[in-house]
Amino acid sequence: MTVPPQLGALLHRSLRVYQVWGANTEVGKTVFSTILCGLTSTSRPDEKTAFLKPVSTGPTQEADDCHISKYLPGIRSETLYQFDLPVSPHLAAQVSQKNTPSDKEVLAGIHGFASRHASPNNFGWLFIETAGGVHSPGPSGTTQADLYRPLRVPAVLIGDSKLGGISQTISAFESLKLRGYDVELVMLFENDTYQNHSYLRRYFQENHSIPVQTAPLPPLFSSSNDTRNMRTYYTSTLALPSLSSSIPSHLSDSHQARISRLESMPDAAAKTIWYPFTQHTHLPSDKITVIDSAKDSHFDTFDHPSPANKSVLRPMFDGSASWWTQGLGHGSPTLALAAAYAAGRYGHVMFAETIHEPALALAETLLEGMGNERLKRVFYSDNGSTGVEVAVKMALGAARGRYGWTEEERKKVGVVGLKGSYHGDTIGAMDCSEPGVYNERVEWYEGRGAWLGSPGVRCEKGVWVVDGLERRFGTLGEVFDVEGRERRGEGGRYEREIRATLEGLVRKGGRFGALILEPVVLGAGGMHLVDPLFQRTLVNVVRSSPELFGHAQQSKDKLDWSGLPVVFDEVFTGIYRLGRFSAASFLGVDPDISVHAKLLTGGLLPLSVTLASESVFQSFLSEDKSDALLHGHSYTAHAVGCQVALESVKEMAKMEKDGRWSWAQNKQQKSDVGSQPDQVVESRVWSVWSHEFVEWLSWQSERGVEGVWALGTVLAIHMGGEAGYKSTAAKGLQAALLRGSEGDGGVHSRVLGNVLYLMAGQTTTEETVRRVEPALRGFGLIAEGEDKLKQDEKEVHVPEEDVDDRARHVTERPPVIVPERLGGADKIHDNNCCQPV
Amino acid sequence: MTVPPQLGALLHRSLRVYQVWGANTEVGKTVFSTILCGLTSTSRPDEKTAFLKPVSTGPTQEADDCHISKYLPGIRSETLYQFDLPVSPHLAAQVSQKNTPSDKEVLAGIHGFASRHASPNNFGWLFIETAGGVHSPGPSGTTQADLYRPLRVPAVLIGDSKLGGISQTISAFESLKLRGYDVELVMLFENDTYQNHSYLRRYFQENHSIPVQTAPLPPLFSSSNDTRNMRTYYTSTLALPSLSSSIPSHLSDSHQARISRLESMPDAAAKTIWYPFTQHTHLPSDKITVIDSAKDSHFDTFDHPSPANKSVLRPMFDGSASWWTQGLGHGSPTLALAAAYAAGRYGHVMFAETIHEPALALAETLLEGMGNERLKRVFYSDNGSTGVEVAVKMALGAARGRYGWTEEERKKVGVVGLKGSYHGDTIGAMDCSEPGVYNERVEWYEGRGAWLGSPGVRCEKGVWVVDGLERRFGTLGEVFDVEGRERRGEGGRYEREIRATLEGLVRKGGRFGALILEPVVLGAGGMHLVDPLFQRTLVNVVRSSPELFGHAQQSKDKLDWSGLPVVFDEVFTGIYRLGRFSAASFLGVDPDISVHAKLLTGGLLPLSVTLASESVFQSFLSEDKSDALLHGHSYTAHAVGCQVALESVKEMAKMEKDGRWSWAQNKQQKSDVGSQPDQVVESRVWSVWSHEFVEWLSWQSERGVEGVWALGTVLAIHMGGEAGYKSTAAKGLQAALLRGSEGDGGVHSRVLGNVLYLMAGQTTTEETVRRVEPALRGFGLIAEGEDKLKQDEKEVHVPEEDVDDRARHVTERPPVIVPERLGGADKIHDNNCCQPV
Repeated sequence: MTVPPQLGALLHRSLRVYQVWGANTEVGKTVFSTILCGLTSTSRPDEKTAFLKPVSTGPTQEADDCHISKYLPGIRSETLYQFDLPVSPHLAAQVSQKNTPSDKEVLAGIHGFASRHASPNNFGWLFIETAGGVHSPGPSGTTQADLYRPLRVPAVLIGDSKLGGISQTISAFESLKLRGYDVELVMLFENDTYQNHSYLRRYFQENHSIPVQTAPLPPLFSSSNDTRNMRTYYTSTLALPSLSSSIPSHLSDSHQARISRLESMPDAAAKTIWYPFTQHTHLPSDKITVIDSAKDSHFDTFDHPSPANKSVLRPMFDGSASWWTQGLGHGSPTLALAAAYAAGRYGHVMFAETIHEPALALAETLLEGMGNERLKRVFYSDNGSTGVEVAVKMALGAARGRYGWTEEERKKVGVVGLKGSYHGDTIGAMDCSEPGVYNERVEWYEGRGAWLGSPGVRCEKGVWVVDGLERRFGTLGEVFDVEGRERRGEGGRYEREIRATLEGLVRKGGRFGALILEPVVLGAGGMHLVDPLFQRTLVNVVRSSPELFGHAQQSKDKLDWSGLPVVFDEVFTGIYRLGRFSAASFLGVDPDISVHAKLLTGGLLPLSVTLASESVFQSFLSEDKSDALLHGHSYTAHAVGCQVALESVKEMAKMEKDGRWSWAQNKQQKSDVGSQPDQVVESRVWSVWSHEFVEWLSWQSERGVEGVWALGTVLAIHMGGEAGYKSTAAKGLQAALLRGSEGDGGVHSRVLGNVLYLMAGQTTTEETVRRVEPALRGFGLIAEGEDKLKQDEKEVHVPEEDVDDRARHVTERPPVIVPERLGGADKIHDNNCCQPV
Repeated sequence: MTVPPQLGALLHRSLRVYQVWGANTEVGKTVFSTILCGLTSTSRPDEKTAFLKPVSTGPTQEADDCHISKYLPGIRSETLYQFDLPVSPHLAAQVSQKNTPSDKEVLAGIHGFASRHASPNNFGWLFIETAGGVHSPGPSGTTQADLYRPLRVPAVLIGDSKLGGISQTISAFESLKLRGYDVELVMLFENDTYQNHSYLRRYFQENHSIPVQTAPLPPLFSSSNDTRNMRTYYTSTLALPSLSSSIPSHLSDSHQARISRLESMPDAAAKTIWYPFTQHTHLPSDKITVIDSAKDSHFDTFDHPSPANKSVLRPMFDGSASWWTQGLGHGSPTLALAAAYAAGRYGHVMFAETIHEPALALAETLLEGMGNERLKRVFYSDNGSTGVEVAVKMALGAARGRYGWTEEERKKVGVVGLKGSYHGDTIGAMDCSEPGVYNERVEWYEGRGAWLGSPGVRCEKGVWVVDGLERRFGTLGEVFDVEGRERRGEGGRYEREIRATLEGLVRKGGRFGALILEPVVLGAGGMHLVDPLFQRTLVNVVRSSPELFGHAQQSKDKLDWSGLPVVFDEVFTGIYRLGRFSAASFLGVDPDISVHAKLLTGGLLPLSVTLASESVFQSFLSEDKSDALLHGHSYTAHAVGCQVALESVKEMAKMEKDGRWSWAQNKQQKSDVGSQPDQVVESRVWSVWSHEFVEWLSWQSERGVEGVWALGTVLAIHMGGEAGYKSTAAKGLQAALLRGSEGDGGVHSRVLGNVLYLMAGQTTTEETVRRVEPALRGFGLIAEGEDKLKQDEKEVHVPEEDVDDRARHVTERPPVIVPERLGGADKIHDNNCCQPV
């Protein structure tokens, strides 16, 4: 497919661009546009003013650009799309004989006009006039407030001076604000009967510090003298000191303030912000990326040395999905409205012993969506780390109740986990992962438990490989056929080795209260795709071995936990990140406790849930308050988060049901069934990253690629190859992606040691993915040699390693792909890392 | 002052009430109201329909209720306030000779009408028609969308069928949604030219699952035949099956669904929710409070057995300020719009090495507002608990750098803190507080440090008492005159005893990396108001004794930390909770690290900041990434939280500057200067809880009150007195408050052991406070005896102890007021609790 360039926000250094919006149709937008053009063109003769009407309806000779030309003949004015019928553009376009322009074509037209009008030597002005009201539909049917949002041009709102106009003006303003527009000026006619201007002047000044400027009502239409009357009107109005002395300077100051702020933000940030997971020594201010706004899958970043005729904002693909959170796109009006609704209905209401609709509805939706009949209870907290702390308290409490440890045993109880796992940054969550170079510097960290190695999965030279297995797989779907593989006995060795390891740990005095793991992918530990059959077998062994942990009999209740409470940390892997509602479903086993965050709110704000089985819940019941789960945060189940999560989860479930990812799934299906492309089978796994691309990557061993995998929205490229290259390969690739090329906004990505990963959102389009793939081919792996990559690293900013790169240290330990190749029990259990306490 | 009853939301079990809103003026609201009245009154003869126009402008004979009466003579119709001039009600009211009704009078009128029309035996209908558009101002000038919000009546939105009407309809809808209204139906005329109905039908169905129903355009006005034409129009329209078969049933189903859901929510919650800090054995479903919505300082709770003619929702004072978070009021449209704006502009954008405006502006605003020249850096996290974990990592890291502990020492390093402190629920934050019955059940908790007792402050029988001091104080302001008291030598004994205690701890092998304390009030530990001179002295002793902790010399840089990094946990006490931007200012000492959350966002959603000095920050700089502060959460500095916090902090600072709390401050001043009521001095402390009320409470020792204090928005009543009464007195009082009385919505409060506290928001009005005070006098302390209180506890739901009541256990330890009376060094340091490790 042909992929047009990504369009970003519109901000020129020397061109002051404002978009003129109407609180309604017939409020005088064109008259005010004329006034704005007139005021700015007369204020300084060297500053050229232009007028653009992207979409106009009604007869050509009555079009707004003609009006401007008529009364201000020196002004450059243009209409991009003209439709004759004087109705809403979406209707006018329908009935016209013309092609209906897409939203992107309209935006590209505006960008083009601005570029042509912008001068590197002089300041200029551009006023872009919308059609009708803020939500009047554009040609495609998208309402203009949504259509023009990617440009995020500052707004001049023309208020309604007629009866009812106060309401129209405030509502239009709110619709713009909730899409992230900045309204810099409100203008309207003085109407002495309704005096809307008096009310609105106070309203906007007091509530929003926005000035309101007025102009006299224009003369009534006169068939004979209209042109003369209007000329007189404009002449006198443009001469009004109240307008001429304030408006050009206000709009010019606002523009300059925005540019100046964008320029100064890196220095200000370098002085005031203490960044997460950042060695500030390596972060001079000029390496800080300024994000002016964001839309869909892209940031609009400030591009300091941008060419004179280009926007100083450039669209940059958010390649880490904003630290793995992004799902429904940046600046989603749906989520903004959901957040506003809950804020307006509740604010935050305290949750202990109370209930409100968003919290209850979300709980019910999640329990149903998980399809795990064990899970019956929802505990709310604020982020993945607190969600894991809650999960561990639940699991240890349940195990304590059954196993009745001595006081001494209790204090030494730990978890069974996987090497390379990562569960969060608070001390309790850190304690769930094995010691590493990073967490050992934290005074209060103690790894509490034992951690098993796990076999990794990746594509190498076109075939799928599982560590320790001789079998090669044609597709990832075959790897994920866990039931089939189990039936064929492939899990037998896993089972024997896991059992032997656990027995060894217990023999040495280990006491365990939980099995905790990230299903399918160990994320922050290095994007380690684990053989799902291994994790499935691990759970089944733990459950079928209660005698190992202190209880002779398996529970008769099939929903009761057995052996150890099984905790799945789906903070990263859950809620469609890997293509399914729950990552547990890939394993075909149901955890007793499941933690969710990140995508839970579609990528808007923090919220976490810890889901638990009734049997875990019951173990905290007694007459004694101190047996309860004594945990809670002030904003527990905050209504805004719950409402946003409810809409997000429902929307993603609907996308699945409606086949919104079929463009990705269909391609996967073909590859999944190998030589029979016409046979339609349900694909076990799919990814937005194309099969061809993944396969191509898997052949690039000469360029340092050791293996690759893609699942759902995640693509992970494990770099390796020559010694010494390991730790710079991923970073060199990252640097090249960040820089991008001419006409390409670049890709913002993160690395985890020697792994570069890319992550799309759930609404990222096929077009966007297909734009990013060649960027990776072109700039990272093919076009540039190793030396160039190293040079890039010096020239171009290389962000710090990822936030979560804690459990492994790239220079001191063999990096991923595989922490431990499975060769025997003693290799699963590495005595150096596995610490039965 | 006379205090009118609190008005809440309007929802009658048998009366289906809908509010008819217009997308604009002249969209046919009255025609549609007539259609709605007609459809519902003809559908079932036993169901009476009524029409209410709260505010009408224009000639009486043309009023909408007359229109209804004319065409539907059987319908009860009424106008509450009529103004003759056909302009916006706020203008019409101004120029009329009538009194302008307040917003509350309008709401009370609607409540009254609904009560009179509601029948206990039959279902009925009530349509309330607004004037003009959704934001057209009411008589007082408040726009109607805000004016009517406390009722939160479900909306029928009349769309605009004219040119531009699509925009008007969607914007009006968004303005309603962002105030928490539920729009149940959209209606508009069919206009074949503009076809707005086609567009809007799809738009609302697809995006919001809201049905859109249409009616034919009414006949044009005819001076001769208008009445006949309209009769014909109504007859034919009401007979349309598309309307008659769908609208009454849809509106009746919606109403019934809302009631049914409210009824079933407690059972559903009891089955699915795992509540924070709750022993579920003590929480049967009928004790769960259903919150339908909230406004300002009140919840609207579902009152199951409400009288037939009263709303089933009752306004309940949010007496814990929703777990100490609430500041700018529930359902604040300002905060809702702020949240929506940031969501629309950014969503969430990843924060490592990037910067965005809300995060930077908030950081700058906080650093400036704190007025602490040490603090230069802002680290973002999600809640108070994570903020404290970050603070401790910062402090320990800085101390490690200077003191160069051995590996063995490092693992044993702890904090110096105060007994009864509380810093959060994650393991690292728990470890900052001393062991207690509650946290000892948490397997992974280890108290790490040593905790000193501290002298409490309270009012007893009209005088202010400080534990261990013989001096009595006439006002709390005198207690807070720390500089004066220090000059007079009152701090000398504190200094000697603190120094001796610290020396003893170090002698016994204690290693310390931070001093951490909640300035002024230890909140969750029992609302323990600490002598500010003691905390000030503690900080100064630690800073002047670097040799105690491993460093011989005091730093020459006066902004450098000395002795130990001083961490102030202002999560509860900061951002105006106690009346000032920073609680540290009461002590007159500047911490090196300061943690803030709760009120930071005005009470909307979770966000936390940890502020740090440059010297602490510098200690993490090196060439080695692993020396950095390796902490971060995915939603670090989420734009929605930062924007809401920015608006909140600015708004509260503006309230202070504008003297918005002068009603409380002035009274305090008088009491503060004792016998010279006319002398105006700047009060050191003030509270929204009246001086008279606090003094009155302080005399109620016979009713079990041991002491009381009020500061800022907090009131704490320490119950004590007879043995055995201690643990039930506060709960009895709480139960009585919750139940309230006839015409009183009750007070939702929380207890901490034997302390009952009440907390207002920063926008809580004097009227509301004056309504709550007598409730406390009347129902808790005066009117009912001890036996009655105990009985209440059985009859009325007593919520669990507060979330944060962890560090002390009421039945096993002597409860607050004072953990340790200061009598000597050995009493400051209790060997049982203080654990130098």
